[in-house]
Amino acid sequence: MTRKSRGVLVGRFQPLHNGHVHVLERILEGEDEAIIAIGSAQESFTLDNPLTAGERIEMVRAFLEERSLLDRVLTVPIPDIEENLVWPARVKEYTPVFDRVYSGNSLVLNLFRSFEIPIVKLDLIRRDEYEGTSIRNRIANGKKWQQLVPVSILPVLKRVGFSKRIKMLSSWHKERGTDDEN
Amino acid sequence: MTRKSRGVLVGRFQPLHNGHVHVLERILEGEDEAIIAIGSAQESFTLDNPLTAGERIEMVRAFLEERSLLDRVLTVPIPDIEENLVWPARVKEYTPVFDRVYSGNSLVLNLFRSFEIPIVKLDLIRRDEYEGTSIRNRIANGKKWQQLVPVSILPVLKRVGFSKRIKMLSSWHKERGTDDEN
Amino acid sequence: MTRKSRGVLVGRFQPLHNGHVHVLERILEGEDEAIIAIGSAQESFTLDNPLTAGERIEMVRAFLEERSLLDRVLTVPIPDIEENLVWPARVKEYTPVFDRVYSGNSLVLNLFRSFEIPIVKLDLIRRDEYEGTSIRNRIANGKKWQQLVPVSILPVLKRVGFSKRIKMLSSWHKERGTDDEN
Amino acid sequence: MTRKSRGVLVGRFQPLHNGHVHVLERILEGEDEAIIAIGSAQESFTLDNPLTAGERIEMVRAFLEERSLLDRVLTVPIPDIEENLVWPARVKEYTPVFDRVYSGNSLVLNLFRSFEIPIVKLDLIRRDEYEGTSIRNRIANGKKWQQLVPVSILPVLKRVGFSKRIKMLSSWHKERGTDDEN
Amino acid sequence: MTRKSRGVLVGRFQPLHNGHVHVLERILEGEDEAIIAIGSAQESFTLDNPLTAGERIEMVRAFLEERSLLDRVLTVPIPDIEENLVWPARVKEYTPVFDRVYSGNSLVLNLFRSFEIPIVKLDLIRRDEYEGTSIRNRIANGKKWQQLVPVSILPVLKRVGFSKRIKMLSSWHKERGTDDEN
Amino acid sequence: MTRKSRGVLVGRFQPLHNGHVHVLERILEGEDEAIIAIGSAQESFTLDNPLTAGERIEMVRAFLEERSLLDRVLTVPIPDIEENLVWPARVKEYTPVFDRVYSGNSLVLNLFRSFEIPIVKLDLIRRDEYEGTSIRNRIANGKKWQQLVPVSILPVLKRVGFSKRIKMLSSWHKERGTDDEN
Repeated sequence: MTRKSRGVLVGRFQPLHNGHVHVLERILEGEDEAIIAIGSAQESFTLDNPLTAGERIEMVRAFLEERSLLDRVLTVPIPDIEENLVWPARVKEYTPVFDRVYSGNSLVLNLFRSFEIPIVKLDLIRRDEYEGTSIRNRIANGKKWQQLVPVSILPVLKRVGFSKRIKMLSSWHKERGTDDEN
Repeated sequence: MTRKSRGVLVGRFQPLHNGHVHVLERILEGEDEAIIAIGSAQESFTLDNPLTAGERIEMVRAFLEERSLLDRVLTVPIPDIEENLVWPARVKEYTPVFDRVYSGNSLVLNLFRSFEIPIVKLDLIRRDEYEGTSIRNRIANGKKWQQLVPVSILPVLKRVGFSKRIKMLSSWHKERGTDDEN
Repeated sequence: MTRKSRGVLVGRFQPLHNGHVHVLERILEGEDEAIIAIGSAQESFTLDNPLTAGERIEMVRAFLEERSLLDRVLTVPIPDIEENLVWPARVKEYTPVFDRVYSGNSLVLNLFRSFEIPIVKLDLIRRDEYEGTSIRNRIANGKKWQQLVPVSILPVLKRVGFSKRIKMLSSWHKERGTDDEN
Repeated sequence: MTRKSRGVLVGRFQPLHNGHVHVLERILEGEDEAIIAIGSAQESFTLDNPLTAGERIEMVRAFLEERSLLDRVLTVPIPDIEENLVWPARVKEYTPVFDRVYSGNSLVLNLFRSFEIPIVKLDLIRRDEYEGTSIRNRIANGKKWQQLVPVSILPVLKRVGFSKRIKMLSSWHKERGTDDEN
Repeated sequence: MTRKSRGVLVGRFQPLHNGHVHVLERILEGEDEAIIAIGSAQESFTLDNPLTAGERIEMVRAFLEERSLLDRVLTVPIPDIEENLVWPARVKEYTPVFDRVYSGNSLVLNLFRSFEIPIVKLDLIRRDEYEGTSIRNRIANGKKWQQLVPVSILPVLKRVGFSKRIKMLSSWHKERGTDDEN
Repeated sequence: MTRKSRGVLVGRFQPLHNGHVHVLERILEGEDEAIIAIGSAQESFTLDNPLTAGERIEMVRAFLEERSLLDRVLTVPIPDIEENLVWPARVKEYTPVFDRVYSGNSLVLNLFRSFEIPIVKLDLIRRDEYEGTSIRNRIANGKKWQQLVPVSILPVLKRVGFSKRIKMLSSWHKERGTDDEN
């Protein structure tokens, strides 16, 4: 058995958006399989991370199913470790053996380079739009956002109440200032 | 033996203030006992959490003693868990069995709802005044604040040096900017 | 206001037994108040720690209520810290200010001594019987145990299913050996 | 969109064996999808948990691929939390929404029941053979074990050096006694 | 054997600067030995903590070697504990027995005072210049900074890429806003 | 500046013994400097780890001073991480850059090999005697042990009460069985 080649895409997927899809397509051109490493897996119900890891897995799989990619792409939640230098070792620990990390994030690339893990530097396209933060901001402000994500994930986001949750978290933050007083 | 009904009040109690007292009175109208769950128990000597868990317990008990409520109200410190969805399970783990969570905090209510734990949504009164953050700000700025808390807790706050500690932490922050350089 | 004197009793209270009661009585002879510090608060559903912190608080309060001691004795759950030398600092952090630690446990006494916290060394009575481990073993083996604990806690233990839980955990361990395979 | 029904199978999969496969088949008879929750995900290179989470995911996927089940079964690593009562909440957090937990483990069933999560109690077949511990013991002692696991995972186990690693860990333990002196 | 007297200097040393050197000299006037406690040891590759603990140790030792102080000054990395009151106990745990803590930081002094550990309050000189934050800001903004640190550490900083790393982290932050999206 | 070559010696040093000294001498034959990485740094006051990290640093430095090695050997405490695969990354994080890990421990060697960090496999001499566990057992049983450690560390061990502490912990364990009841 020859081992399959694998590329890793690290993100938080709050939510999965067209920028991620673009990178995933590039990985699948060069590798047999892609690993979607879902970072900050332990977080949920915050403005930066509204969805739980489980909801993010469900959302990504809805996309993969519609594209018939479930046999070439797998999802792995990665809980954060508050030690940057150690984090690449945790990614390695939680994922099947891989060959390359694909990223446009200079910190991520630097950290993997410390362990001599091969990296592929990506030029991100239309960063300003295809970015989780700006999508979540649009939702909080009642702007259109659905065109920035794959249509196949919308039913999952609807069922878990993605927009509603972001609006709740957003008004909760405004009401309280920076302090999470209760 | 019929089990007593219990309602939970979650807060950080930095310090206990008249808003908390108002909620506690409402809980005691409807339940046999109230559990005061002291959140962020592991924190102290920060601007958001100047008092230790132990000091907060001592302060709350001074109030309960003066009101003759020690047999109907208990205090339980709850250390934070950095996983929002898991937090209600920790509250459940640290407290005697309870029937309802009383809160005006939409995030708290949402999280408990995920575990189908009954909640009572409260309208908070005079939020702007009866709120820990604004009380701590008043202290830091040398404004009057004692009228916003029960008089029975003042001797405890005096002995542990509550105002003095807030002023120290406040000038320490200003001097250093956002970074805790030392 | 003169501060009340306080003595701390540290234990795991799995369950509260007559040995604990004996120590508590000694503390209350010499101090205004006693703090019952419930150690290993984060543990539950294990053979060594079958009860949750919340269940242990409920059990202790049932005893205190029957003895009319709720105004002189308070319960504080203390989560473990896996650093022995640091542990006395955590006890200090979670509890109202106290004057003395009462214990028959030489390690506990040594650790508090490192921080120059006054200690009272106790001679434990009928250790072999009045000890959590031997009580839990009796339950696992179907022997009589109720005479070793205060009668006032039995209704709480019955409602939470204390004996039944120990038997479940015990047969679960036997079935699996030392490894928690599943 | 009607949501798919999902059943969870919790295990450590050190390694995946025929007993797991049997349970998985039962789940897939009754549910649309199965979630394989890989417990103790943070552990590796110990006698109880020789494989990393990533290696276990790779092994399980090799089996699922051979059975053409990648579209109906997903793998989710779950790091331990040292608080039994809180653990079911973490499983819920890391997994897509599910309907039932299938298990033959009485502790697992009891913990999920605390959160009123539906469970399906399984009678395990040929426990003595189809169990990770006994398989790892056979390997450590040089006995035949391959017949107890699906043949499709053997190439992955060979490549990562499963048997060799267990033998290394086993002689390392013997050499040192219970203490991990170095 | 008479025990040597020791003074502790707590800092994060991002990087070691002339302000630290000044304090160290004062300690060595009064004590036999100095302990350089390197705080936030677990952090690296952030704007506040660009260097790893190991890099900071290497940098400090380069300075000590040039001053022939390796026999009187030792370095100890101290990982943070998110419980302020408990932190002095951890410092005590990680360091050889010491007599006094030297600091200009009012919070540090207050925390050690809680455990009755003797402190020496320092007046810091030229705070605005000799401070890690302002040095890192200078580097991020391309200003001269080398004159603010001992010349003996420059080769280490050059080899690990200190300036380059700060610039990378700084542009990474700007590009992303406050959220660490990836 | 040519960087110095460095070799790492990982151990727990409970206590430093002649076996460690032998390895250290071998490292110093081949490298410019040696790093003594003190593992399980967070532990103390247990039978396996009686000394705190700080006491171990003090003990090792007493030896290094007597041998005039303080300029070639440095001590670094390393707190455990409960994830074997990630542990070598933490060692890397806490230590100055190094070239080789020297060890006779097959697990340690395997883990570093996963990150392609060069290792030097050592044959340990007189393992049965020169081993922390057997030294601590001798002390607990009142046998002679001082001949197994460098004479220069004895004054430190005496001052911190090493033998007395082991005897206290040993009788504490016997008295209680495996359970740390209190």
